[in-house]
Amino acid sequence: MSFSVRLSAAVARTGTPLCVGIDPWADRLPGRRALREADRSALAALSLRFGLAVVTACADLVPAVKPQFAFFEALGPAGMSALAEVCRAARQAGLLVVGDAKRGDIGSTASAYAEATLAPDAPFPCDALTVSPFLGPDTLEPFLRVARAQARGLFVLLRTSNPGSARWQAPVIDDLAAWIEAQNADGDPYGAVGAVVGATHREGSELRRRMPRTWLLVPGFGAQGGSAADARALVHDNGLGALINSSRGATFPAAPDDAYDDDPAAWIRTRVLETRAELARG
Amino acid sequence: MSFSVRLSAAVARTGTPLCVGIDPWADRLPGRRALREADRSALAALSLRFGLAVVTACADLVPAVKPQFAFFEALGPAGMSALAEVCRAARQAGLLVVGDAKRGDIGSTASAYAEATLAPDAPFPCDALTVSPFLGPDTLEPFLRVARAQARGLFVLLRTSNPGSARWQAPVIDDLAAWIEAQNADGDPYGAVGAVVGATHREGSELRRRMPRTWLLVPGFGAQGGSAADARALVHDNGLGALINSSRGATFPAAPDDAYDDDPAAWIRTRVLETRAELARG
Repeated sequence: MSFSVRLSAAVARTGTPLCVGIDPWADRLPGRRALREADRSALAALSLRFGLAVVTACADLVPAVKPQFAFFEALGPAGMSALAEVCRAARQAGLLVVGDAKRGDIGSTASAYAEATLAPDAPFPCDALTVSPFLGPDTLEPFLRVARAQARGLFVLLRTSNPGSARWQAPVIDDLAAWIEAQNADGDPYGAVGAVVGATHREGSELRRRMPRTWLLVPGFGAQGGSAADARALVHDNGLGALINSSRGATFPAAPDDAYDDDPAAWIRTRVLETRAELARG
Repeated sequence: MSFSVRLSAAVARTGTPLCVGIDPWADRLPGRRALREADRSALAALSLRFGLAVVTACADLVPAVKPQFAFFEALGPAGMSALAEVCRAARQAGLLVVGDAKRGDIGSTASAYAEATLAPDAPFPCDALTVSPFLGPDTLEPFLRVARAQARGLFVLLRTSNPGSARWQAPVIDDLAAWIEAQNADGDPYGAVGAVVGATHREGSELRRRMPRTWLLVPGFGAQGGSAADARALVHDNGLGALINSSRGATFPAAPDDAYDDDPAAWIRTRVLETRAELARG
């Protein structure tokens, strides 16, 4: 079954477009305050515990999780082992895994990144991967080939949620949006190539209109300043077409919290339920 | 001492702008044919052997090596351990390490990628990192902060060597080139922020002229079709200002080769000497 159909089914089953980000930000990991030696292997162990807590907390509540590769990579090979285990556990639990790696490279190098994440025996198994289009359409082809062959998806960076995103994205946004939508011409009703569109931009609804067959991955809801209403506006009336991500807002307390350190899965479950409700009201 | 000064000194010492890429492409690794079980851990062991062979082969011949992160990532955590060890061995041998990761992300996520590669105790220690500017100038700031504080460098993707690179690079190239050069205004004579400019483009010499204080990292020489003369034209008259990369052309035989499998370091050393000479003639 194609990625877009699996994603539609998962959104319908859970009744929410919420995707929960897994950002094991070293300073805020549950258990971090009690750590004596904050070396990389100890932080990698806490990152694994945190990632598994998110999976446990929300396996029946949301369609997808989005592990952020950077925070695992910062912890070295031990961190990458934790990432591999979190990806496997999430898929095992029935969650779709959107690998947030923003990879992009040419030819066989792009194929290597695709093998790392989208191949059947990928070491970091993901159902979809975020990719950067900057190197050109030919450099997205190797990702597309693997994604289509393996019923996986891509989310191409189009309009990111940071303040400076317009400078080198706005000059290409029309052509890039058209290129992405064209990949989904045979969508059922959506295709395999999604787009990353921040919740913080007014042109979001214009992009939504021009890309009817494209799944949007919408960061920036919550911690980054996008409102639930802004994000919700990108979802089609049938509840599909946009996956709204919340990472830190749904997984970290605003201040140190003993209940969180003791049982992060319980704390995160409560917070994910609140975030789902907030988004439904939006 | 700043990255640009260290790079200038290394080019002057070795008498060549050649950078040798380390691309442990699984199909062509020395020893691959003799492998019974080509599982990831066996391939990771061969990748480590290959990376260390490149380091041994060219430590006194070239200023820098460029490990390609994708091929190590495709082999999972064991591959990332091999990458870490290759980076450490190269720096130990006195080579500058240009991490070819093409990373890019926002805020604290970009900081995590910088910590992984450019911090003093980085798990994958690099002297410079390739980064993608697509997300915007604010997303390059976290990389710049770490690079400047730790006397490391960046190479920002500007005009890559693949056939489709113009489509989403050409519309921003003038502004991006000016932004990069502006970062190097206090260059001595070069600054910390380099640019990736393929040897395959006619506008290379125009960019060279407009970016006098910017180190260029020039891929595409050899296997990708750029000539030695094209690449050489981007080097300043004093022999500095451009690092010319050759990956597969300098490290893999055109056809299976027993001498290569038996002693890859000796084979690669001969080939790197030939590539250096070819570039000097260009």
